[in-house]
Amino acid sequence: MTVFDFQIQASDPLCAARAGVFTTPHGELRTPVFMPVGTKATVKAMTPEQLRHLGAQILLANTYHLFLRPGDELIREAGGLHAFMNWDRPLLTDSGGFQVFSLADTLKLSDDGVGFASIVDGQRFHWTPEDNVAVQNHIGADIIMQLDQCTPYPCETATLHQAVVRSAEWARRCRVAHQRPDQALFAIVQGGTDLTERLQSVQRLLEIDSQTAGFPGFGIGGYSVGEPHQLMFETLPAVAQALPVDRPRYLMGVGNPTTLLRAVACGVDMFDCVLPTRTARTGTVFSHQGRMNLRNARYKNDFQPLDDSCDCPTCQGFSRAYLHHLVMAREMLASVALTQHNLRFLLRLMEDCRQAICTGRFGQLLAQWENSAAVDDF
Amino acid sequence: MTVFDFQIQASDPLCAARAGVFTTPHGELRTPVFMPVGTKATVKAMTPEQLRHLGAQILLANTYHLFLRPGDELIREAGGLHAFMNWDRPLLTDSGGFQVFSLADTLKLSDDGVGFASIVDGQRFHWTPEDNVAVQNHIGADIIMQLDQCTPYPCETATLHQAVVRSAEWARRCRVAHQRPDQALFAIVQGGTDLTERLQSVQRLLEIDSQTAGFPGFGIGGYSVGEPHQLMFETLPAVAQALPVDRPRYLMGVGNPTTLLRAVACGVDMFDCVLPTRTARTGTVFSHQGRMNLRNARYKNDFQPLDDSCDCPTCQGFSRAYLHHLVMAREMLASVALTQHNLRFLLRLMEDCRQAICTGRFGQLLAQWENSAAVDDF
Repeated sequence: MTVFDFQIQASDPLCAARAGVFTTPHGELRTPVFMPVGTKATVKAMTPEQLRHLGAQILLANTYHLFLRPGDELIREAGGLHAFMNWDRPLLTDSGGFQVFSLADTLKLSDDGVGFASIVDGQRFHWTPEDNVAVQNHIGADIIMQLDQCTPYPCETATLHQAVVRSAEWARRCRVAHQRPDQALFAIVQGGTDLTERLQSVQRLLEIDSQTAGFPGFGIGGYSVGEPHQLMFETLPAVAQALPVDRPRYLMGVGNPTTLLRAVACGVDMFDCVLPTRTARTGTVFSHQGRMNLRNARYKNDFQPLDDSCDCPTCQGFSRAYLHHLVMAREMLASVALTQHNLRFLLRLMEDCRQAICTGRFGQLLAQWENSAAVDDF
Repeated sequence: MTVFDFQIQASDPLCAARAGVFTTPHGELRTPVFMPVGTKATVKAMTPEQLRHLGAQILLANTYHLFLRPGDELIREAGGLHAFMNWDRPLLTDSGGFQVFSLADTLKLSDDGVGFASIVDGQRFHWTPEDNVAVQNHIGADIIMQLDQCTPYPCETATLHQAVVRSAEWARRCRVAHQRPDQALFAIVQGGTDLTERLQSVQRLLEIDSQTAGFPGFGIGGYSVGEPHQLMFETLPAVAQALPVDRPRYLMGVGNPTTLLRAVACGVDMFDCVLPTRTARTGTVFSHQGRMNLRNARYKNDFQPLDDSCDCPTCQGFSRAYLHHLVMAREMLASVALTQHNLRFLLRLMEDCRQAICTGRFGQLLAQWENSAAVDDF
């Protein structure tokens, strides 16, 4: 297969779920896929070796954070992000647009780009779409994301519309500026919870796609920014279906198991979220019985594994009692062990989806989850 | 070989260094050996799997901390410490005496034992030597240490003497109380920096050894409590030589590379120290060029490994520049990576000593180290 080719291997007959293979210079992504987040060129508490053993196919890193520290030039000097962080499988960088909007309280936004202050030392920077592509070119991930304007929730239609128009314009400029043939540039759909704006966003991006070298994949941004959970599913199915069937669809920043399963049913292929790693560090884990907080005294004498159907090293080696002890003693191994479990839980959930789609049992898998105790875990 | 048998496989012709094998119910210890410290049933920042890959033969855990949390009864209920922390190689618990003296500011000391307050919740406890053995029996390590009285530096001779007499009396009571045949009880030599007291301590313990079931090994305690470094070597050679040649000698709480090498030359077989793990968490590592602090800006663009002769996963995968970045960003992987390196450094140093002793090249190895840039690393 050629690089950045997306081959669909199976589609569910009753919903939009599909299993595919996306080819990158660092290997194939088998979709649906969950991408662990390594914001600052490290997935918190994990070694690259542990991530490989957990079955992580691709990691995500953050352009905003890496630009500020250690700097994109230094990463280029190191031979690119793969060499810098010792990860030889695919990598994706988001543009940092989301962080600029959510972290920088000194934001200056215009049609030409975005000005922001460093959270490290206050220094001011300005990114045009072209600047942002250059930074991501230096970092060197297999998949890079266009600079976009992310809207909050709730948001007035005029602002939503402006973000849709501006993001599409920036998609065009990123597409023109991006020249590295070994990096795929994904465009990003915006439009909040407004279906008209969402579909117009898709339309604008498809127009650019047809007029240029095109986008090998599409991000769906601007969800999971505080809106009620069910609201996303009022527009997501139509948004996903409006995107080209032969390109991967990446729902950005969503990571709870129930939402992942439902989004796979809508035809989404890729996911990322800090949820599994961040909640692990607070002592909380996913399980087929729903979320568990290991600080709870009920686990003090509980010698069972976290989830007896889980094949992660934590469930193979440690009891809830031991994990409770590690959490209470604030030992680093608590974060390591719970992060391993949460990541494996989502990675395997996606492997299970893929397997089910390929064997015509996805509807059954989804129904099982919807009827389980874990369904309310958001 | 029978359990707790110590076989000497080679001795250096010019110094007291020896290579041996100590047999435990969970496998053999090949000495000289460094024991990573897992105070609260976890070596900070390490998984059991990582420790196995680093070549850790045995871990040390702390009776004082485990008694307070999660409690020795809970560990017994879990099937013992090996099962609780998922470590199937040998384990050693120290008695907690040192922690009682150094952490508890509400210490009550008498010939009958020691009273102390919990650092967790202030609750008061009293340990007789028999109580302490019972706690260590519950925890279930392969090697347990007698309750002893540790003296500070400097210390008056009368206090040193009292500690020597009392510790020997407690050694006798521990020996009588200890009945588990699958745990080896080691006695502990005290006496500070006073050679007369040290040799009297040995004499008293050997007397008890000959009158009872005996001690399969001896700890050498009360060093590295703040005295000038060279002071230890004014008495250690004689203390080590006064101990039976057919029993392992364990120098407690010492972990800098130079001291380890010199102590091996005195005939010491076992070591433990928090130094490699604790300094790693502050960004500092051992190397053959001496200690390095990764916070130093000189490492920002340094794409070499920490130590190019090191075979640890950190040196195999990461550059100093990446480690500098992780330390500056306060990422957990910094602690993991630097801990792995420091532990491997000491574990391999002891493997190298063993190999050198077995092939008659120990003097050469020691001379090489004494002439290297790393010799001043204390």
